[in-house]
Amino acid sequence: MASVVNKTAHPFDKARFDATLNRRFFYAPAFEIYGGVAGLYDYGPPGSALQANIIDQWRKHFIIEEGMLELDTTIMTPSAVFETSGHVARFADWMVKDTKTGDVLRADHLVKNVLENRLAGDREARGLAAAPPVEDKKRKKKAGKATTLKLDDEVVKEYETILAQLDNYTGPELGELCRKHKLTNPDTDNEVGEPQQFNLMFQSSIGPTGQHKGYLRPETAQGHFLNFNRLLDYNNGRVPFASAQIGRSFRNEISPRAGLLRVREFTMAEIEHYVDPDDKSHPRFKEVRDIAIVLLDRDVQEAGSSETRVMSVGEAVDKGIIANETLGYFIVRIYLFLVNIGINPKRLRFRQHMANEMAHYATDCWDAEIHNATGWTECVGCADRAAYDLSVHSAKTGQPLVVRQALKEPIVTEKETPEWNKKNLGKLFKKDAAVITQLVEALDEPSLLKLKGELAQGSTVVKSEDGKEFALTPEVVTIERKVFKQSIREFTPNVIEPSFGLGRILYTLLEHSFWSRESDVERGVLSLPPVVAPTKVLIVPLSAREEFNPLVQEISAKLRKAGVFSRVDDSNTSIGKRYARNDELGTPFGLTIDFASIPNRTVTLRERDTTDQRIGSIDEVIATVTELVDGTIDWEEACQRLPAYDGVQAVAE
Amino acid sequence: MASVVNKTAHPFDKARFDATLNRRFFYAPAFEIYGGVAGLYDYGPPGSALQANIIDQWRKHFIIEEGMLELDTTIMTPSAVFETSGHVARFADWMVKDTKTGDVLRADHLVKNVLENRLAGDREARGLAAAPPVEDKKRKKKAGKATTLKLDDEVVKEYETILAQLDNYTGPELGELCRKHKLTNPDTDNEVGEPQQFNLMFQSSIGPTGQHKGYLRPETAQGHFLNFNRLLDYNNGRVPFASAQIGRSFRNEISPRAGLLRVREFTMAEIEHYVDPDDKSHPRFKEVRDIAIVLLDRDVQEAGSSETRVMSVGEAVDKGIIANETLGYFIVRIYLFLVNIGINPKRLRFRQHMANEMAHYATDCWDAEIHNATGWTECVGCADRAAYDLSVHSAKTGQPLVVRQALKEPIVTEKETPEWNKKNLGKLFKKDAAVITQLVEALDEPSLLKLKGELAQGSTVVKSEDGKEFALTPEVVTIERKVFKQSIREFTPNVIEPSFGLGRILYTLLEHSFWSRESDVERGVLSLPPVVAPTKVLIVPLSAREEFNPLVQEISAKLRKAGVFSRVDDSNTSIGKRYARNDELGTPFGLTIDFASIPNRTVTLRERDTTDQRIGSIDEVIATVTELVDGTIDWEEACQRLPAYDGVQAVAE
Repeated sequence: MASVVNKTAHPFDKARFDATLNRRFFYAPAFEIYGGVAGLYDYGPPGSALQANIIDQWRKHFIIEEGMLELDTTIMTPSAVFETSGHVARFADWMVKDTKTGDVLRADHLVKNVLENRLAGDREARGLAAAPPVEDKKRKKKAGKATTLKLDDEVVKEYETILAQLDNYTGPELGELCRKHKLTNPDTDNEVGEPQQFNLMFQSSIGPTGQHKGYLRPETAQGHFLNFNRLLDYNNGRVPFASAQIGRSFRNEISPRAGLLRVREFTMAEIEHYVDPDDKSHPRFKEVRDIAIVLLDRDVQEAGSSETRVMSVGEAVDKGIIANETLGYFIVRIYLFLVNIGINPKRLRFRQHMANEMAHYATDCWDAEIHNATGWTECVGCADRAAYDLSVHSAKTGQPLVVRQALKEPIVTEKETPEWNKKNLGKLFKKDAAVITQLVEALDEPSLLKLKGELAQGSTVVKSEDGKEFALTPEVVTIERKVFKQSIREFTPNVIEPSFGLGRILYTLLEHSFWSRESDVERGVLSLPPVVAPTKVLIVPLSAREEFNPLVQEISAKLRKAGVFSRVDDSNTSIGKRYARNDELGTPFGLTIDFASIPNRTVTLRERDTTDQRIGSIDEVIATVTELVDGTIDWEEACQRLPAYDGVQAVAE
Repeated sequence: MASVVNKTAHPFDKARFDATLNRRFFYAPAFEIYGGVAGLYDYGPPGSALQANIIDQWRKHFIIEEGMLELDTTIMTPSAVFETSGHVARFADWMVKDTKTGDVLRADHLVKNVLENRLAGDREARGLAAAPPVEDKKRKKKAGKATTLKLDDEVVKEYETILAQLDNYTGPELGELCRKHKLTNPDTDNEVGEPQQFNLMFQSSIGPTGQHKGYLRPETAQGHFLNFNRLLDYNNGRVPFASAQIGRSFRNEISPRAGLLRVREFTMAEIEHYVDPDDKSHPRFKEVRDIAIVLLDRDVQEAGSSETRVMSVGEAVDKGIIANETLGYFIVRIYLFLVNIGINPKRLRFRQHMANEMAHYATDCWDAEIHNATGWTECVGCADRAAYDLSVHSAKTGQPLVVRQALKEPIVTEKETPEWNKKNLGKLFKKDAAVITQLVEALDEPSLLKLKGELAQGSTVVKSEDGKEFALTPEVVTIERKVFKQSIREFTPNVIEPSFGLGRILYTLLEHSFWSRESDVERGVLSLPPVVAPTKVLIVPLSAREEFNPLVQEISAKLRKAGVFSRVDDSNTSIGKRYARNDELGTPFGLTIDFASIPNRTVTLRERDTTDQRIGSIDEVIATVTELVDGTIDWEEACQRLPAYDGVQAVAE
């Protein structure tokens, strides 16, 4: 039997958690020895490995499982592309300046921080339970601390409504809020000026002349859209299909302060799923329709609430809460991916965008929000972008970005059609011929029928916009009823876009995985699932003595062959300290080699969370740990295969 | 027995090759529908997969095999970092402007193109064998075609010498060459102006104020160096160790025209190996010392030749041709990596940098150059950067970037040491006290002994630089012999840097892999090794009929479980056409499912290069193909396991 572990003996301690990640170099401020740059972080060895494993899982879960077409497009992008996409005009945040210091703040963040502080002060004044950690932390950090001050009930209600709808406000509305509620810079208590737009794209210039403006992409999406025709061709001209890309993007955030949750450079994973606008069903929707998810829909938020409800995705689509099956299918796939890598499903919800929040062209949009010490954070967006992107790029470049589909049944139509005698037309009307042709071709069916009748009588007159009249006879034009057969349907596909911020997922995953041993709050553990843990197995020889080397090498080689990533820790410190270090690094299993290992060819297997130890022959233990890492068995099953280690074997030097 | 294949029946055809890669969307000009941007390329599905597989092999070959510490650092870098590293001042190319059109060209490329054209014209005039493809291509492309014109023998010799040493010229020297040899813009025949420096870093600005200048990194290296202390700590304070990083870098090339070989945005893989400057031996050098490589050393080039020699790396290090074991070790590891992924070893050489070409701080530098249709191209650099980078960043930031090593035997030294009576010193000399202390502390051993003698006599006099004299007595200072014990050695490690341009490696690998079937020049094949091929196995049902679906799904699932990446091609075209398409995509194996497969549970296995087909039970074939993909058996061995397919089973509908 595996031991039972109490992971919630100690409350989550953000300071201890941050210190652990920093000490173990999961990540650290970039350019730290130069004083750092806000919003830029470097990943160290465990952070890089964790990120690589998350990406690997993402590739398997989405690209391989769904047969998506992977792309790798450039970050540097000429200005014209983002002029077309709307980013040059609209990809901006509202910033306000402190009227005295000139410090720049994001307007919506200012509103959020100040109102949350006031609400926290109110709760304290009312003697309610201690404010949740988010406000606690804010108050410690900010110069403008929350004052314990009771608010009128209707003020509390008003603040809560504002916060629930915060993403719905325009810049001028945010300015209005600052004036009305006397919101000042919490660091200085100074007033702030009117909100101004700041474009979040980093700008540069391409080539030696300095004349070609370029931007660093703020998302990978445009690189997909611009390659649409090649992708469609690669997919033999058929939709639906999806392209996928994992890569770096950049946003020149105004005042990033939230660690990995708001950075200026980040790795994204984006999917663009191209679908027939007339048929957004999904062939695999039936596989997921009964899966229940936590939803926070648009109507609830617009009513000023943030109450969620649990519903199967099938019901949500049936009721029109989620716009279509394909969107619903991806929401579930996102959910399954996040839970599979270790996100706590109880701290995961899907929030629908409100009307003002959504891009004007989008049909529907849901964010996967993950709860963490700072509140709920958007980690994945899932939007139905309709035909917007392909349409605007097509209009701008003159290149059709469409699907041409052979119709099973050709569509047959009959209509009245002008037949011209070009020779007579030219002879009679010279340069007016084009105008006349245009006038007649633009007529609707009833008008053409009228014309037909008049021509049958001998002649008719058409009139141009500027009032010029032209007399036409059957020598110039006749109107005939003709049959048309359309065998190709041409359409611009709609795009469903699941877009993942990998840094935010990585950070929240670390938070959800962190706890301290019941017996000792100083002993932190990262319970990362084996599938994403940076190192799967730690090999721990009792000491750095040479006599252990052959076994260390044998076990390393066998694990490598089994595809299990291991590391050896033969540093000059106790086994206990080495394991404690690797508990902080999230290494799920340890193999200890001691003096009994040499004659007996046995090793002990340690599980990180329980610290249980089992014993077995080298090959048995390697086979078991391989299955544990692959996820085909769990620790409970491993305990049935391998007897408990009774400690007798230890240190028999 | 496997069939024998003739891969050289048709000469390499660059135009056919380029068209194939483009049609199959290995890569394509980025922003093509916007007219494209020189030097920016997007990778499509097969190119992305090939790149991902090369990276995967690189990770296994270097990071995992050698236990390197992986990093992921930011691209956006504040200006101060590149001011320190020297990039702001020196990371530049020489450009010349066409005096009439204003077109900008790279000065060294201009010299190379024009001289190579003239030499080609000379060879034609002499009636020698047709000029090699590189000149052929140039002449077709350039407006200024090579003229068939015989040159004097000494002119030919002079041109050849210039070309062999081209990387050795400074900007003004390139200008001098243009004047002396009347080198004009080959596109227009116009003269060009004096070479000017153009910094190759893309510039931007960080944050909303516009006051913080940033650059996109032109290499990943600085991100390693700035994290040195954290990495050293992660490695328990020990050297040697290596950090490794795979990531995007940017160079604002002046006039990129060479496809993937010269681009403005590219993926690099860089290793920084930190080593004791007093001991550059490598513990695993003995494993590689007998491996022979093709070298083009500095002396040969400086003598105006480009003749290579084959030598074991052991001999090259012993003779001092390669500066040290660690550099030699990495040169062999680079060689093995490149050959393992499919680079033709006969088209691979290691060229040493000449004196002017090397960064001033570097001790030695070798480029892995790979031969391709445009000549020899640097694909990997391997430099001993000495202590330069860590030293300059440490000096600039005041942060020590050093290794502190406990000495096994403390170093014990005895020396004469001034002992001050600070109270008397202050009372007697007031503000001069500091000057006096400095003067005495700076004295060498003999001077201190002299002082000691004089003090023993009662007093002495010391003289400051500006001639001031101070009389000292034993009440102020005495000189005593003291014993010092040094138990820590502190040093700045040296850095050996293997740096890989993945796009160039990918491109040359594609060139080396491409050939046309002997029977039909139109049928291109990419003989990518299974280890890097985008898709390992193509599953080909005879038709898209539903009755094949269960077998297709069973085989797909079994291959996925075995870790073999497969794709299904059930498009509406003949099996032959589907295989031809996948030969162009480099898919090494195909499994055909026909009507006999359903009752017999057999499938045929096709090998791409030979087009041989074998037959076996589904499970036998999957086991065999898994081993083929893992590289544990070759096709010859597969043929011994599975009987040849005699065609009887075919299409028994």
